[in-house]
Amino acid sequence: MVSVAIMGHGVVGSGVAEILTTHKKKLFAGLGEEIYIKKILDLREFPDSPLADRFTKDFDDILNDREIRVVAEVMGGVNPAYDFVKKCLKSGKSVVTSNKELVAAKGAELLDIAKENNVNFLFEASVGGGIPIIRPMSQCLIANNVDEVAGILNGTTNFILTKMITDGMQFDDALKLAQDLGFAERNPAADIEGHDACRKICILASLAYGKHVYPDAVHTEGITKITLDDVKYAETFGCVIKLIGRVKKLEDGKIDIIVAPMLVPKESQLANIDYEFNGIMVRGDCTGDVVFYGKGAGKLPTASAVVADIVDCCKHLKTRKYLYWTDGDSKNILPVEESVNAMYVRAKGADIAAKAEKIFGGVSIIDKADSADNETAFVTSEITLGEFNEKIAALVNEGAEILSTIRIGDL
Amino acid sequence: MVSVAIMGHGVVGSGVAEILTTHKKKLFAGLGEEIYIKKILDLREFPDSPLADRFTKDFDDILNDREIRVVAEVMGGVNPAYDFVKKCLKSGKSVVTSNKELVAAKGAELLDIAKENNVNFLFEASVGGGIPIIRPMSQCLIANNVDEVAGILNGTTNFILTKMITDGMQFDDALKLAQDLGFAERNPAADIEGHDACRKICILASLAYGKHVYPDAVHTEGITKITLDDVKYAETFGCVIKLIGRVKKLEDGKIDIIVAPMLVPKESQLANIDYEFNGIMVRGDCTGDVVFYGKGAGKLPTASAVVADIVDCCKHLKTRKYLYWTDGDSKNILPVEESVNAMYVRAKGADIAAKAEKIFGGVSIIDKADSADNETAFVTSEITLGEFNEKIAALVNEGAEILSTIRIGDL
Repeated sequence: MVSVAIMGHGVVGSGVAEILTTHKKKLFAGLGEEIYIKKILDLREFPDSPLADRFTKDFDDILNDREIRVVAEVMGGVNPAYDFVKKCLKSGKSVVTSNKELVAAKGAELLDIAKENNVNFLFEASVGGGIPIIRPMSQCLIANNVDEVAGILNGTTNFILTKMITDGMQFDDALKLAQDLGFAERNPAADIEGHDACRKICILASLAYGKHVYPDAVHTEGITKITLDDVKYAETFGCVIKLIGRVKKLEDGKIDIIVAPMLVPKESQLANIDYEFNGIMVRGDCTGDVVFYGKGAGKLPTASAVVADIVDCCKHLKTRKYLYWTDGDSKNILPVEESVNAMYVRAKGADIAAKAEKIFGGVSIIDKADSADNETAFVTSEITLGEFNEKIAALVNEGAEILSTIRIGDL
Repeated sequence: MVSVAIMGHGVVGSGVAEILTTHKKKLFAGLGEEIYIKKILDLREFPDSPLADRFTKDFDDILNDREIRVVAEVMGGVNPAYDFVKKCLKSGKSVVTSNKELVAAKGAELLDIAKENNVNFLFEASVGGGIPIIRPMSQCLIANNVDEVAGILNGTTNFILTKMITDGMQFDDALKLAQDLGFAERNPAADIEGHDACRKICILASLAYGKHVYPDAVHTEGITKITLDDVKYAETFGCVIKLIGRVKKLEDGKIDIIVAPMLVPKESQLANIDYEFNGIMVRGDCTGDVVFYGKGAGKLPTASAVVADIVDCCKHLKTRKYLYWTDGDSKNILPVEESVNAMYVRAKGADIAAKAEKIFGGVSIIDKADSADNETAFVTSEITLGEFNEKIAALVNEGAEILSTIRIGDL
């Protein structure tokens, strides 16, 4: 029997307790011994829970219990999770977490502390919810150099964009629907501004390239400026608009990492990932493109990934799984002005097509039947963001009003 | 340093040697020690290989070398691979293989021998080539009861069907093209008759349900009877025809397993998996649908999965990975006559629509503009195969000529 503790009894935490109870037999068969929930940390009271006698409000009850070998941190947020996780690792307990904010902010440090103390720190659930991605990348694809990772990493924004694309809903209406259905928080900023996706691509980038990438070093754009007009021009151009987190390895060893809405060609595997689903493409030098698809959030999908990590820790009480990266700074990150993309532009004014042609030298005009008067949308060839911004300024100088600019994702 | 041997220097075997050489640094970083290719078994000579001095034609050179701790079997076929693998496991060497024929035929026995000898027997590359699937199913999804696994498991047939669907090629022409491009063998029977896909769904079913499923217990149909007419009716019905391997868990504990072409609705995640790519959907009771996509074959994708297994064995020289199932018989397999599907039927004769309506009681006629004279295609509601066959006989009795019948996949 291995004793474990769960810190947090919210959506994911209660799911972890539920799966450890309902799937006891299957887990026993896989592990060869029983997993016993000895303590659950939460400041609230749960008198009606069948596990009511295991609850504590005092973290020290977990920290000082030497029988507890594995702790699941499912509280979310950096504080106090960071302090608790650090103390657990230092006291020789393995920790698993679904907390992407914590891993993105403190991953390298916590992995180091785990290594020093010969315990494991696993976080399969922190990216893609129930979709296996951390373990496949660190184990199955270990014989690959990863050239690129790109994904739809946030279900809320993908739900909103899908509703805009398939039902022609306005952004605000789609957001409200997502909130009503429980896909979006009352305060949706972390999702719609791209911060949640940013944390996840940072974790995947750190894993792929072995050096911690911090979210504040990553250029991040959300989807709040996307309009139905852009959605329709994208459709005409054979694309759908998706919020993409992407990291590429460049030839000079730098990485090009970004979170931004992109026009994704319909034939891309990522174009068909709709509603609250997530999809992650990993491009290995041996495997080529591998795509992982599923529900990126939700109580049981996320909790089942946490439980799989608990099982793995229980199996490796004396040995360490290889999941590690060192600390990093932003020096190996390409400045966003130097990143190269083809760009979609929607602009208002006279003779935009001719002016764009002159300034950008060869653009594809998107010929949409019901374009608004004086409105033109076009796509440039590949160009650095710095050069693009200069040319856009020149276009404005010639009297154009820029309505929107979105990257084309060559995915 | 861990010494390993490779048995077979064909497409996959030479790929394994190549990756172990070219990715030495990355593998060292992951494992913490060097993987040294000590022996390569092949009856042919490779005097120009940089590893020429490691080749042997004598299996005993590997078996009797106590320094060799891990052996990669990439010869293919059941014999002599079965005998060699058994001997390696019994002598305390871990074995990894890409050989689906071997795993489908002898998996339970070899897993047992591995367990008795406290070594590992891993076969990530046996299904889906470079797509991570065995490890995600056995580790990441361990906290799920698997309700269903369905996939496009054979790249050759998927390439042929894609060419029929997108380019309107005839089956024979598409097969010839696949052969010319190296996607199909000169003798394509194992692919186009469905046997290769059958071996793979048997491995996934054994893994999902813990009991070995043998290929000869599985109803298997290939794609040789699929015509362009069927492809076009499917298109009109909003579907594409794919060769699907599928296993479902039924409420009485039996499993419903089959390999057959199916009409897959275009909104299914499996419908967009084209050409030589594979895709596998795993439906867990906690995660919901998770889909894995990538190249299901090829030298480097497959070899990179073999190398990942080698690394895992090197890491677990003294402990066992949990990857196990017991022997099984066909008693838990639903007889194919009792399996339930909606069915597509294409038939020739007078008044087929009215007759089908009378006999099947409610069918959907597929209204294709350029149907041949006297030809009708329709889709039934869900029905057991036994009852379907009786009703088809009744339709024939009323003068219909049955041109084709294909299952509808509710995927």
